[in-house]
Amino acid sequence: MNVTILGNNSALPAYGRHPTAQAVEVNGEIILIDCGESTQVQMQKYGIKWRRLNHILISHLHGDHYFGLPGLLNSMSLQGRIQPLHLYAPAPLLPILDMIMQVADSELAYPLHYHQLPEGDAILEDNPAFNITCFPVVHRIACHGFVITQKSSGRKLLLDKCSEYNIPQTFYNQLKQGQDYSAADGTIIANNLVTLDGPPAKRYAYCADTLYSETYLPFIKNVDLLYHESTYLHENADKAILRFHSTTVQAAEMAKLANVGQLLIGHFSSRYKELDAFEAEAGAIFPGVHVTVEGTSYEV
Amino acid sequence: MNVTILGNNSALPAYGRHPTAQAVEVNGEIILIDCGESTQVQMQKYGIKWRRLNHILISHLHGDHYFGLPGLLNSMSLQGRIQPLHLYAPAPLLPILDMIMQVADSELAYPLHYHQLPEGDAILEDNPAFNITCFPVVHRIACHGFVITQKSSGRKLLLDKCSEYNIPQTFYNQLKQGQDYSAADGTIIANNLVTLDGPPAKRYAYCADTLYSETYLPFIKNVDLLYHESTYLHENADKAILRFHSTTVQAAEMAKLANVGQLLIGHFSSRYKELDAFEAEAGAIFPGVHVTVEGTSYEV
Repeated sequence: MNVTILGNNSALPAYGRHPTAQAVEVNGEIILIDCGESTQVQMQKYGIKWRRLNHILISHLHGDHYFGLPGLLNSMSLQGRIQPLHLYAPAPLLPILDMIMQVADSELAYPLHYHQLPEGDAILEDNPAFNITCFPVVHRIACHGFVITQKSSGRKLLLDKCSEYNIPQTFYNQLKQGQDYSAADGTIIANNLVTLDGPPAKRYAYCADTLYSETYLPFIKNVDLLYHESTYLHENADKAILRFHSTTVQAAEMAKLANVGQLLIGHFSSRYKELDAFEAEAGAIFPGVHVTVEGTSYEV
Repeated sequence: MNVTILGNNSALPAYGRHPTAQAVEVNGEIILIDCGESTQVQMQKYGIKWRRLNHILISHLHGDHYFGLPGLLNSMSLQGRIQPLHLYAPAPLLPILDMIMQVADSELAYPLHYHQLPEGDAILEDNPAFNITCFPVVHRIACHGFVITQKSSGRKLLLDKCSEYNIPQTFYNQLKQGQDYSAADGTIIANNLVTLDGPPAKRYAYCADTLYSETYLPFIKNVDLLYHESTYLHENADKAILRFHSTTVQAAEMAKLANVGQLLIGHFSSRYKELDAFEAEAGAIFPGVHVTVEGTSYEV
C-alpha cells in the first residue's frame, strides 16, 4: 500500500505544483483521492493507470479538489473504459456532472456509480482487499476526510509445518483465514500449529482541508500514515483560522496526538516558493514528517 | 497581433499536448479563445498575463474546450483581479458556472459579464482597438468560430508635409482619422496632402471544431491568418465525417478556397504521436501552413 502525490498545492497552481490529488495503491488497485485540475495529465506523467482505478473520493466541492474530474471521467470514456467506476462525493456534485454531460450531448461509455457522502462518518466500501471510511473535518463548506484500510492478507503459513502434517496446498487459503484442518483419518490439526499471526492491516488517513480540531482525532488514531493539510507556516496561523486551514505546527501536533506512524503534509499556499521551513517547523514537533513532493510515492 | 497556442490537441491530452486554448494578443490586450483543462498552467508556462486578459470566447461545450475555465476564473479571483471580464459562450454554460460557484459558497471578486452566443453570426465586441465577430460552424453540438479584427492604427502621417503646412502636433490624431486641417487664416489643408493610407486591418479567423463545409466560407474569406482544425490525416476522412471533424486536406482546401494569407492547423487526435505527415499533407495543397506547436506565437 502506498500513496503517490499528484498535486500538493492549494488552490492556485504555482512553482510547478498542482492542486490536490493523490493516488492510493492498495493490493493492486488504485483509489484516487480528490481530483484537482490537471490530474489526468499528472496521472499520465507518473504512470498511474486508470485501468486499475475503480474508486474516486472527493472530499469537498472547492474547485481545487475536483475541477479535474470531468476531464478524467471523459478521457477514460474516450479511451474505451467499460469497467464500472465508483465515485464518492458530496451530493451537489451529481447535478453538475449531469449538466456537463447533457450540454455536451454525451454519455460515459462505462457505468458511473455515484455514492453521496453522508453528513457524518460512514463505511463507504468494504471488500476483501480494503475498506474505505469517511469522517467529517472542519472546513468552510462540508468536507470529509477518508481512512483506507488495507485488509491483512491473512495468517502467515509455516510451510514446513504444513508439509509435516500433510496438509494439501488446496487447503492453504482456508488456513490463511484461520480454519483448522481435518485429515482423512479424522485428526484435527489446529490452525495455530501451522500458522502465525499475519501482518497487521495497514491504515492511511487523509484529512482533506480542515481547521485544526480534535473532533476528527478519534477517526485517525494510530493510523500508519496520516496526510494532514498544512497550507501555512505557523506565522500565518491567523490566516489559517480565517480560511479554515491548518499550519505546520497544527498538522504535527495532530500527528503526535493521534499517535500515527508517519505524517505527510501538503496543500501548500502559493505564497511559498520554497518549502524547507515546512519540514523544519513540523519536524521539530513530529520527526516522522514528509513534506510531500509531486510524483513521489510514500509507503503506508 | 499574434496568436500563442496553449493547447493543440483534441480531447485526450497526449504526448505533452493539451486540449484547445489560444491566446490572441491584439494591440496589447489578450483575448483567450477556448479554455481546455490546464489552460491556467499553460498561461503561466508561456507568460500570458491575466492582467491583460479581458475577453474569453468559448466556441462550444465539449469539455476539451472549456474544462479549464472554472479554474482560471477562480484563480484570477484569488490573485486579486478586480477588473471586469467579458465571457462569450453558449447559453448553457452560465447555469453550470453558477452551480459551481454556489456549491463552493464562493463569489468571484471581479464582475464577470456573460454574453450568450447567438444562433447565427454576430458582432460580439467592437472597440477602438479591435472587434470580434462569431459565425456558426458545423459540429455535433452548437459551435461557433470567431474572427478578430485588429483595427488599423489610422492613416500614416507624412511628418515633413505636416511641418511644411504648420499643422500642430495636437491635431495629428485627427489627421490619422482622416480629417482635413483648417488653419487660423481659413486655409483648408486636405488630409491626403499630409497622410497616406495606413496599414490595412489585420484579421484572424478561428474555425473551432467543424466538419468541412462551405457554409462558413463567407466569414473567413481573405483573412490574414486562419486557424482550421485538422483532427485527422486524410486517410481517416471517414472518422472525421462521423465525428464532425476535419482532415489536413480539408483544412488546406478551405484555406485555399478562402484565399487566406497563412493557415494554422491543430486539434490533433491523440492517435498521432508524430505530426510530420500533417505538414506534408496540408502543405501539398496550401504551402502557407503551420502545424501548430504549443508555446509558439504566430504573427497575424
